[in-house]
Amino acid sequence: MPTNLSLSALAHICGGAVYGSSDPLISCVASAEKAGANAITFAVDSRRAAALLGTAANAVIAREVDIALTGIECGIVHPDPYFAYAKIAQAFAPRARANPGIHPSAVVEPSAQVDPTAEIGPLVYIAPQVRISAGVRVHAGARIGRSASVGEGTELFPNVVMYPATHLGARCIVHAGVVIGADGFGFAPHQGTWEKIPQTGGVRIGDDVEIGANTAIDRGAMDDTVIGDGVKMDNQIQIGHNCHIGDHTVIAGCVGVAGSTIIGKRCMIGGAAMISGHIKIADGVVISGGTFVSDDISESGRYTGVFPTVAHRAWLKMAARVRKLSKA
Amino acid sequence: MPTNLSLSALAHICGGAVYGSSDPLISCVASAEKAGANAITFAVDSRRAAALLGTAANAVIAREVDIALTGIECGIVHPDPYFAYAKIAQAFAPRARANPGIHPSAVVEPSAQVDPTAEIGPLVYIAPQVRISAGVRVHAGARIGRSASVGEGTELFPNVVMYPATHLGARCIVHAGVVIGADGFGFAPHQGTWEKIPQTGGVRIGDDVEIGANTAIDRGAMDDTVIGDGVKMDNQIQIGHNCHIGDHTVIAGCVGVAGSTIIGKRCMIGGAAMISGHIKIADGVVISGGTFVSDDISESGRYTGVFPTVAHRAWLKMAARVRKLSKA
Amino acid sequence: MPTNLSLSALAHICGGAVYGSSDPLISCVASAEKAGANAITFAVDSRRAAALLGTAANAVIAREVDIALTGIECGIVHPDPYFAYAKIAQAFAPRARANPGIHPSAVVEPSAQVDPTAEIGPLVYIAPQVRISAGVRVHAGARIGRSASVGEGTELFPNVVMYPATHLGARCIVHAGVVIGADGFGFAPHQGTWEKIPQTGGVRIGDDVEIGANTAIDRGAMDDTVIGDGVKMDNQIQIGHNCHIGDHTVIAGCVGVAGSTIIGKRCMIGGAAMISGHIKIADGVVISGGTFVSDDISESGRYTGVFPTVAHRAWLKMAARVRKLSKA
Repeated sequence: MPTNLSLSALAHICGGAVYGSSDPLISCVASAEKAGANAITFAVDSRRAAALLGTAANAVIAREVDIALTGIECGIVHPDPYFAYAKIAQAFAPRARANPGIHPSAVVEPSAQVDPTAEIGPLVYIAPQVRISAGVRVHAGARIGRSASVGEGTELFPNVVMYPATHLGARCIVHAGVVIGADGFGFAPHQGTWEKIPQTGGVRIGDDVEIGANTAIDRGAMDDTVIGDGVKMDNQIQIGHNCHIGDHTVIAGCVGVAGSTIIGKRCMIGGAAMISGHIKIADGVVISGGTFVSDDISESGRYTGVFPTVAHRAWLKMAARVRKLSKA
Repeated sequence: MPTNLSLSALAHICGGAVYGSSDPLISCVASAEKAGANAITFAVDSRRAAALLGTAANAVIAREVDIALTGIECGIVHPDPYFAYAKIAQAFAPRARANPGIHPSAVVEPSAQVDPTAEIGPLVYIAPQVRISAGVRVHAGARIGRSASVGEGTELFPNVVMYPATHLGARCIVHAGVVIGADGFGFAPHQGTWEKIPQTGGVRIGDDVEIGANTAIDRGAMDDTVIGDGVKMDNQIQIGHNCHIGDHTVIAGCVGVAGSTIIGKRCMIGGAAMISGHIKIADGVVISGGTFVSDDISESGRYTGVFPTVAHRAWLKMAARVRKLSKA
Repeated sequence: MPTNLSLSALAHICGGAVYGSSDPLISCVASAEKAGANAITFAVDSRRAAALLGTAANAVIAREVDIALTGIECGIVHPDPYFAYAKIAQAFAPRARANPGIHPSAVVEPSAQVDPTAEIGPLVYIAPQVRISAGVRVHAGARIGRSASVGEGTELFPNVVMYPATHLGARCIVHAGVVIGADGFGFAPHQGTWEKIPQTGGVRIGDDVEIGANTAIDRGAMDDTVIGDGVKMDNQIQIGHNCHIGDHTVIAGCVGVAGSTIIGKRCMIGGAAMISGHIKIADGVVISGGTFVSDDISESGRYTGVFPTVAHRAWLKMAARVRKLSKA
């Protein structure tokens, strides 16, 4: 891991331009409050730039219009400081590479194919016919079911569970406790009880997908559940069977998507939004946090449906009046 | 696993009648789009029957009134095609039976009683005094606490955790990451801090229960938390301490049920519904998805409480007007 | 574990006064319905006291004004019977102490420092440079990442995951499936895709914190995520990166708190409440269950925002009228 990078090297990394007359060595990215003398910080807009006055950081990333406002003598001018910050932070904290080999406490079935450059951690279980590609990291206690596959450079954090016949693309990051490919929730009512419908589809997850802790993605009933390339999912999300999530859609924490729903590309689903089953959401749709979506959305744009929060006494009155709307 | 079954054999399995003059061999159930020549597909109603035109499936399951609409020459007539599909799909994808024995990497305490026909997978831990019945399958990494018991034919997927003194009935399916019997959320306020109330009750789960991935069912405070026979729960559900869930109730994903609530038999709880503690819901109640239930429901029927979703600009206006209802 | 304690000993334990002329031996705390002859039960108010008539319990905990109502001849008078019950229940069910030593199936890296009084259970993984303090209990299958630390007397239930550089205080209880320190959800949009922002902050959790099953607490982006002393969290909670939760705040199940939100001390967050990112909630705020909080709350008090639940037909009318509020 590099300990010091020159400002000009960082400007090169993020595609920005050096500002100021010196080219100091930078040792880390830091928030304005925590920055020490060799840190670079950043300001995404004019308000944040002005708020940097007094920081100890000796360099800043800002837009051209904002950089003078920061009062910091040198830095990097970039039209998108947040993106530049992401690239620079990556340079200071590159993802660890696989430490090739299989830990002696792991259980790997003989018919599994594990690339010799992959890292299989302690107490992992890898079932028969699994394929693990080059550079994959599987951390302690992950379980990979029969005939599943993991693409190049993907990282599975501790205790991830992949059910049989589920497939992860390349360069994915799957956080602890994620469950991929459990049975979808399918039952046929029959004389007051529920008959299980075997869930024989799989799960296909594209490249560059990140999946947050304790998220669950169910396998399809007959066909597959599909997660597109570049999808980013936060923690505690539930994706029902046979959903399709379009490329580069982001989904915040605690969202539930019921079965057979199709979400377009480049959508943004706010935290705790809940999306009904068997509906279709167009590309580029933004769903506000806490919104319950029960119908198709065919046009891009932002959609919202949350009850406004007020002091509890005011709510009692409001709720009573709303309830009245159901009568007369 | 059978590779081919005759149409007449399938009709027998689901209790339907053969339609058409031939008795072809069928190799799988498939959706209309994915069906190949030896597949059987199904239509639950007239609209779906009409939509099957052009499928490659050479047999169909449909109601008597719909079967001619499908344009498929042979099939199975059944008054409930979805149930018939479930039974036929089970015939093509029967659940795997236990492969008896204890994996050498599992840790099983000497005082645990494991039936010789049970399968204990890799890296499993089974604590003292546990009882594992005949035909049980415990997959990799599951943890079964002291004095817990698992009924005949039940299957525990990877990394399931059963706390001490929790009990699962027969033929249950418990998906990966499920936690049964963690402490209920009980604290007594005292001088600005919270005093823990020991949770000394257990969890009793009936027969034929299915529990989805990463669901948590807490143990009772003094008495037990009880899940009835035939209850089906989806992923990411939270069941608080001392809840009772009646037989054959189904609960969709992301539902939370707070402590000491009693839900009747044959209820249907929609996804992301949230149910307050210490309330009672009658048999046969249907709760719509996203609904927050804070009072008793004493009559069967469907209940709903979600704010309608609209375009964000319209919502701003709507929310402002709703907020006004709290004043004047 | 004590099997019998005299009424006077129990009164001493909870700081109450003996009522009645006898001093019986008590063997357990029990609910009114389940209590046998040697049990003590309790009543928090007059209504509950009156409801105890007919219980088999031979002692009761109640307020002075209520104790005669119970019809039970002896008991403990305490101004806060629920707190007294907590203390007495703890006396009958003390938490088990660590059984010192490292299970032979655990994998503990040589550079980890494990106090000799700590208990490391079966199939646990402890990474390099971890510090485990005195009296800690780590149950089966927990994973503790590099340079993490666990304070004195803390208990980690099965399959808990601590990521690297996360820190738990003393006397915490962390339930099964909890994930501490997964990456926060941080991505910079860039030309239609999402650039990952390395999450290099940690997680610091105070003393006497309890965390419910399958809850996830993300690590900070640059600075730490911080959970104060005495915080109690239920199951299935999501805490985003860089949140600060004030001391002695309680959070019920299924709550989500988005990133960088600061919640004050001694707040009470109801089940399934959802709290937006980058907001600030004052000390002593009570959020009702199911409420979506999207703005700062600067004064203590109770706040609510849930749509009232009604029969579905009534809801259809209500929702249509609410939707109309967005027009005209």
